[in-house]
Amino acid sequence: MMKSSISSYKKLMEKAKNLFILESAAAIVHWDMETKMPPKAIRLRSLQLAMLSRIGHKMSTDPEIGKFLEEIMRHPEYDRLDTVQKRNVYLIKKNYDEQTKLPEELVAETAKQQAITVDTWKKAKAAKDFSMFKPELEKLVDLRKKAAEILMEVKKTATPYDALIDIFEPKMTAEAISRVFAELREGLISLIRKCKTAPKQPDTSFLKRRVPIDTQRRFAESLTEFIGYDIKSKEAGGRLDETEHPFTTGYYDDVRITTHYYEDKFDSFIFSTLHEGGHAIYEQNLNPEWIFQPVGTGCSSGFHESQSRFVENIIGRSREFWIYFLPKFKELTGGILSDVDLDRFVHSVNHVKPSKIRIEADEVTYCLHIIIRFNLERDLFADKITVTELPQIWNQSYKEYLGVSIENDSEGVMQDTHWASGLYGYFPSYALGNIYSGQILAKMKKDLPDWRRQLSKGNFHSIKQWLAKNVHSYGDLYNPADLIKKIVGEEINVKPYLNYLYEKCSKLYDF
Amino acid sequence: MMKSSISSYKKLMEKAKNLFILESAAAIVHWDMETKMPPKAIRLRSLQLAMLSRIGHKMSTDPEIGKFLEEIMRHPEYDRLDTVQKRNVYLIKKNYDEQTKLPEELVAETAKQQAITVDTWKKAKAAKDFSMFKPELEKLVDLRKKAAEILMEVKKTATPYDALIDIFEPKMTAEAISRVFAELREGLISLIRKCKTAPKQPDTSFLKRRVPIDTQRRFAESLTEFIGYDIKSKEAGGRLDETEHPFTTGYYDDVRITTHYYEDKFDSFIFSTLHEGGHAIYEQNLNPEWIFQPVGTGCSSGFHESQSRFVENIIGRSREFWIYFLPKFKELTGGILSDVDLDRFVHSVNHVKPSKIRIEADEVTYCLHIIIRFNLERDLFADKITVTELPQIWNQSYKEYLGVSIENDSEGVMQDTHWASGLYGYFPSYALGNIYSGQILAKMKKDLPDWRRQLSKGNFHSIKQWLAKNVHSYGDLYNPADLIKKIVGEEINVKPYLNYLYEKCSKLYDF
Repeated sequence: MMKSSISSYKKLMEKAKNLFILESAAAIVHWDMETKMPPKAIRLRSLQLAMLSRIGHKMSTDPEIGKFLEEIMRHPEYDRLDTVQKRNVYLIKKNYDEQTKLPEELVAETAKQQAITVDTWKKAKAAKDFSMFKPELEKLVDLRKKAAEILMEVKKTATPYDALIDIFEPKMTAEAISRVFAELREGLISLIRKCKTAPKQPDTSFLKRRVPIDTQRRFAESLTEFIGYDIKSKEAGGRLDETEHPFTTGYYDDVRITTHYYEDKFDSFIFSTLHEGGHAIYEQNLNPEWIFQPVGTGCSSGFHESQSRFVENIIGRSREFWIYFLPKFKELTGGILSDVDLDRFVHSVNHVKPSKIRIEADEVTYCLHIIIRFNLERDLFADKITVTELPQIWNQSYKEYLGVSIENDSEGVMQDTHWASGLYGYFPSYALGNIYSGQILAKMKKDLPDWRRQLSKGNFHSIKQWLAKNVHSYGDLYNPADLIKKIVGEEINVKPYLNYLYEKCSKLYDF
Repeated sequence: MMKSSISSYKKLMEKAKNLFILESAAAIVHWDMETKMPPKAIRLRSLQLAMLSRIGHKMSTDPEIGKFLEEIMRHPEYDRLDTVQKRNVYLIKKNYDEQTKLPEELVAETAKQQAITVDTWKKAKAAKDFSMFKPELEKLVDLRKKAAEILMEVKKTATPYDALIDIFEPKMTAEAISRVFAELREGLISLIRKCKTAPKQPDTSFLKRRVPIDTQRRFAESLTEFIGYDIKSKEAGGRLDETEHPFTTGYYDDVRITTHYYEDKFDSFIFSTLHEGGHAIYEQNLNPEWIFQPVGTGCSSGFHESQSRFVENIIGRSREFWIYFLPKFKELTGGILSDVDLDRFVHSVNHVKPSKIRIEADEVTYCLHIIIRFNLERDLFADKITVTELPQIWNQSYKEYLGVSIENDSEGVMQDTHWASGLYGYFPSYALGNIYSGQILAKMKKDLPDWRRQLSKGNFHSIKQWLAKNVHSYGDLYNPADLIKKIVGEEINVKPYLNYLYEKCSKLYDF
């Protein structure tokens, strides 16, 4: 690598570093808003966040970045940059091109419309009235369509919707997703039928027994300790707080999760803590040398979800996890669960039951909720359907896929905040994450054949080490399609995930 | 006011607004560091804070500000700006001139040296070894001397040290401080002698009785409620958290305080909560129309301290406050204080006892700690003494003023963080605040003759309203010398504060 190339690269990386520092600071301000902020501060806070985002936008579209990129890329020694350096240049260029191509007015108008649409969504949801929501949603969809068309040019995708998917799952396409989702859908519907007609059904009534919040809190701490997510020691790099909707945020040495405790729904905090913990250990296991570099982040939304769902479901809903934890949880809760045996407990937290609300769905029905949303988004952005038609197609799909009847749009098309927030293209990540997690599990089994035995003894360490080495440490060095190939040796494939679910359910339901 | 003047003024105020938004966001990031941050994040956090401070510096030295200021000030209609507008222009110009005159290298070197000096101070304090601290302190003092000389030119002060005082107490001078401190010192030393030789002495032993932290927390909440500092309702604009050293931070609708609970020193949290609460209600009662304007902040460090000390001492250590609160506190603490009557309680929390550590000093001896530091700073920055001589003169002064013997420099010259942090010129504010609080009290007594009766019935409301109207609502509209005149009708004057202390102590000590 020649000197002049080094110097432009170094300068470019300095710019990237500054942006990561700013964005990680903004993440703290955002976390504070969700967890600690006095309610009166909301107006001030929105100005603060808007300002930090404006500063960030300015930093990431700084013309000097364009200049450095050009200098590096036309440099005769460009080819001698190593893989990491080339990836950093690629990721910065991708972001720079996209950010600079989007007209500022469009960005500003979209931000404004997002705020209005979210606000209207809350009111419309409370009023169970889609017609209130519709006009604002239409405006927001139109704005995102405009952005999608611009981004399609920059990203060179086949369709506008693919350009939106690419934001969350780089290089993934609606066509590829449709293919894997078709297979996934068929497998899940058949599995749901098997579970439904199986003679053995769980008695889940104990899940509603009241467990004091303080007890739940103590158990949540045990869970973080178990997965090696440190929130207590003098070297802790994490925190566990409480919010209505659990989330993970942060960067490297400061990665925070939240959960929610319901006194009469004690399984909620268990699985949300494990879910967010899965996100958190991904972030914490990124290559420490890559801090402040674009490669030093998670690969994609789908990959992030693969890690959270891995810890939540593959680990946390396994029989072996509860061999270890059920006695402890029983002891902690006093006599509350004394009559519940391991079989009943594990079957109940894996109860397959079609329902209306995505965030309450079990592991088997969950992806059908996603597939419904994906189909609607894809057709909406291809102008095959209109916003007006969304409720009707939504309800029809729920009947067809899950056999449930939607009685009003608040438990239907208006249940999630994503569309009100303009996050089109995001939903597929949830199902892609599950699919990846199945492939990752199949590979891990080969390397760690006794992982279940270890888990039943309370040892998560070697599993975590395996995930860190084989998934987390790659950061954003590859696009998801390349990363999954790198990890498991094959392309995205639904079968391992379906196999995992079939195997688990056949044991639980005895079919 | 002509149109062109309006337009430059509006643009200038837009710049100011952005700076306030940024700084209030940075304050949240700083608060998080002190209260919630996982320990591992410290290195990342220092980069985040440095970046926000760099962005703030850039914003406040933006050449456009200079341009707008010039346009406004040379405008023929300048005189038709109103008082608030003129003050805003004045404050922005003052800050702009100072910030732009300080060379960037000096600012950067000082920031770096501050970090080193604080770090060395911690180690030297632990090792009780001033010689470790000395070389780094010398470097920092030299850097601040350089800054003081530059600021002296800009601010047109008589001495470099005056330029440093001006940062915290605008237009105040070492000469004026020396004058009032001489009178204060004499009055306090004579009062201390009277208390010492009085026949009636308090038995303070009960202050060491263990009160569970949870009980302390509940009482702290009652105190915030009492002073109308809302941390609980859906419209709350405040928070109460825990830190080693209590502090207040925030802006308008988001003003947060902290306290510290010691199981065997229950008076600590009471007075620190009231102290920080006093700062907080000052901020919360600023004119809401002045948000994002330079006038919309507290007047000076001294005035801020006058409000915190007013609530902590004049209110919180008064007999009437405890007429109302002691029965409640006794009930809350179960039987722990059942044998302690009102007289003993009030006398004990007003126990006058010379000591070595400033932050543990009682109301009467406190200012002597300040006067000692002020004398040292003044002579140091006038090159009359050297850093090497500080410990010896310190110890000598403590003997002379307070009659206590300093056994090592960790309980002497190295006890406070201020000098290690480069905060020269700050200490006088603490005593000035006490002096102002005495004048403010004398004036309030005239307007609210029955304030003590009201307080004894648990009514702080009219006192708070009086403070809000007569002190808080002025914000930074006047320099402190003008503000005190505006409020009480006379210049800074030690007598009311000394009278207040004499009156209180003569009753308690029965002399």
